[in-house]
Amino acid sequence: SRTIRLAVVPGDGIGQEVVAEGLKVLGAALPADVKLETTEYDLGARRYHRTGETLPDDVLAELKSHDAILLGAIGDPSVPSGVLERGLLLKLRFAFDHHINLRPGRLFPGVSSPLAGQPEIDFVVVREGTEGPYVGNGGTLRTGTPQEVATEVSLNTAYGIERVVRDAYRRAQARPRKKLTLVHKNNVLVHAGHLWTRIFAEVGREFPEVTTDYLHVDAATIFFVTQPERFDVIVTDNLFGDILTDLAAAVTGGIGLAASGNINPSGEFPSMFEPVHGSAPDIAGQGKADPTATVLSVAMLLEHLGFAAEAAAVEAAVAADLAERSGARGTSQVGDALVARVAG
Amino acid sequence: SRTIRLAVVPGDGIGQEVVAEGLKVLGAALPADVKLETTEYDLGARRYHRTGETLPDDVLAELKSHDAILLGAIGDPSVPSGVLERGLLLKLRFAFDHHINLRPGRLFPGVSSPLAGQPEIDFVVVREGTEGPYVGNGGTLRTGTPQEVATEVSLNTAYGIERVVRDAYRRAQARPRKKLTLVHKNNVLVHAGHLWTRIFAEVGREFPEVTTDYLHVDAATIFFVTQPERFDVIVTDNLFGDILTDLAAAVTGGIGLAASGNINPSGEFPSMFEPVHGSAPDIAGQGKADPTATVLSVAMLLEHLGFAAEAAAVEAAVAADLAERSGARGTSQVGDALVARVAG
Ligand SMILES: CC(C)[C@H](C(=O)O)[C@@H](O)C(=O)O
Ligand SMILES: CC(C)[C@H](C(=O)O)[C@@H](O)C(=O)O
Repeated sequence: SRTIRLAVVPGDGIGQEVVAEGLKVLGAALPADVKLETTEYDLGARRYHRTGETLPDDVLAELKSHDAILLGAIGDPSVPSGVLERGLLLKLRFAFDHHINLRPGRLFPGVSSPLAGQPEIDFVVVREGTEGPYVGNGGTLRTGTPQEVATEVSLNTAYGIERVVRDAYRRAQARPRKKLTLVHKNNVLVHAGHLWTRIFAEVGREFPEVTTDYLHVDAATIFFVTQPERFDVIVTDNLFGDILTDLAAAVTGGIGLAASGNINPSGEFPSMFEPVHGSAPDIAGQGKADPTATVLSVAMLLEHLGFAAEAAAVEAAVAADLAERSGARGTSQVGDALVARVAG
Repeated sequence: SRTIRLAVVPGDGIGQEVVAEGLKVLGAALPADVKLETTEYDLGARRYHRTGETLPDDVLAELKSHDAILLGAIGDPSVPSGVLERGLLLKLRFAFDHHINLRPGRLFPGVSSPLAGQPEIDFVVVREGTEGPYVGNGGTLRTGTPQEVATEVSLNTAYGIERVVRDAYRRAQARPRKKLTLVHKNNVLVHAGHLWTRIFAEVGREFPEVTTDYLHVDAATIFFVTQPERFDVIVTDNLFGDILTDLAAAVTGGIGLAASGNINPSGEFPSMFEPVHGSAPDIAGQGKADPTATVLSVAMLLEHLGFAAEAAAVEAAVAADLAERSGARGTSQVGDALVARVAG
């Protein structure tokens, strides 16, 4: 019998509530002979206010010894912008080399899209997770004065691009449509853009069956609303991926349904699964938040740990629930309904 | 009697066709005692292939002596990505210090949006035009090897941010709703983001009547499709503005209707007006391209040169034309219809 050691970081706002439902569903989905051992870590705004800490070294070391991490949401208006994002969330992604930031964009039957015509949407964005403008490289000169200059440096390496591009090709190869779109802005960000374009072409030679396409990020946003059905797999840089996946969430029925995995495919470090939405302090503690995005992230977690059938069962439960939803339901009502479906 | 010296850069693809219609409408709109002197400049892919030049110094000097520039579209698949964009289009924006890149997002009555419910959309994006990741600062190391590293540096100055932010506040102040939203990503790009945030707050003290708001760029894309009516004036950096204005064009009925002005408010250099769409080589030369975006850019040009009533007349002609449009019309049919309305 196998034991899964899961680190749980509920975080801020609705994080607690949605993670609780995610764990219920995870428990219901795992085979009976698998033992789930969860350890909760108190990280986020409360800890920051109490101790000034965002992610202490000993916590990072403990997290490392787990099989995976389930994260709720990080961030609160009481904490200066960037402190928790850079000091906790991004620190985890970088420390654990989560270079594959996987974000499906799927419009489930029964879910209404803000797009007229309710197009068929079923793509996945493979967002680079450890490079680009997210590296935190930059600074300020004459800070706070009328002469201030601020820089942000986007770092891109052939090594970093190649591994995410190859991962995206593999995913495209495994899907029926076998189509991969690179999104960048290689007509303006020519240095990084040409590197992405070169590696994309080079790795593509290993995947002759995959059809490829290139779009500038601005043009991609147009197609996300006018022709989202054209996309199968998308590979893109960290910042463009951030922007496109929120837009993807919007057109597929909202951020309440968008799941993500921060994946280290080598298994050297634990991968981390989290809903794309934030901590939503305005509705926190009211039992109103939709836990579906967290539950879909749990499905990705199951898939990552090798429980493909169980992952499919959770996804099917969500699909069935969404197809039959009517009226507003509370957080735990949705969770219970999903547990019943997974168990049933 | 006044003479307007207009430099015309039709550029590539459909640029020629749409600019021809824009000039017709401009001619019809200007008061009878105003003389329009146009000089056409052959810049773009053809010239590049013929001579290797993108924007020779003598042409730049000649352009400078004009009152304004009307540009069609730049770019062709036969030219490596970035050559014409950086060497011509962006070179003009930077050389002429076009720091206000003005892009209205308006859903005209009669135009169908890909958004269900056809929301009321009427905002304007004030995109910074001379800084940010567009400065071209960056490079590559070990170019072409598996060890390549590529950087892109975003440069942001208090000086550059303050002037665009103040311009945006003025525009917000002059509009009925008086609302200004700053869009950035200050939780990740903390150096540039905090500078934008500081200046936004400081300048805001001069405009107590303007209501302000802040959104991360990823969240902004969500509201563009779920709640576009919430926006009045948006101020943002060069790259975020590029992305958001293509999305704005998409939700307001397409890139065929999106106008833009690259403005140097001091008048030290000529401002440049251009449709947001590209050269669309797939439909070039067929008389099919919609010249409306160019005509709306001509309205912005008129406004900039002090012809407010004439600008309003051109906008009204476009609005009436769009409200009554039926069936597909060719480029010059649309132009002629607009001329008739403006003249009538
Ligand atoms: C909170 C923030 C740092 C994060 C990001 O920008 O990656 C979020 O927007 C996301 O998409 O996971
Ligand atoms: C062609 C390109 C350089 C340009 C930009 O990125 O600014 C275009 O997309 C635009 O929005 O005007």
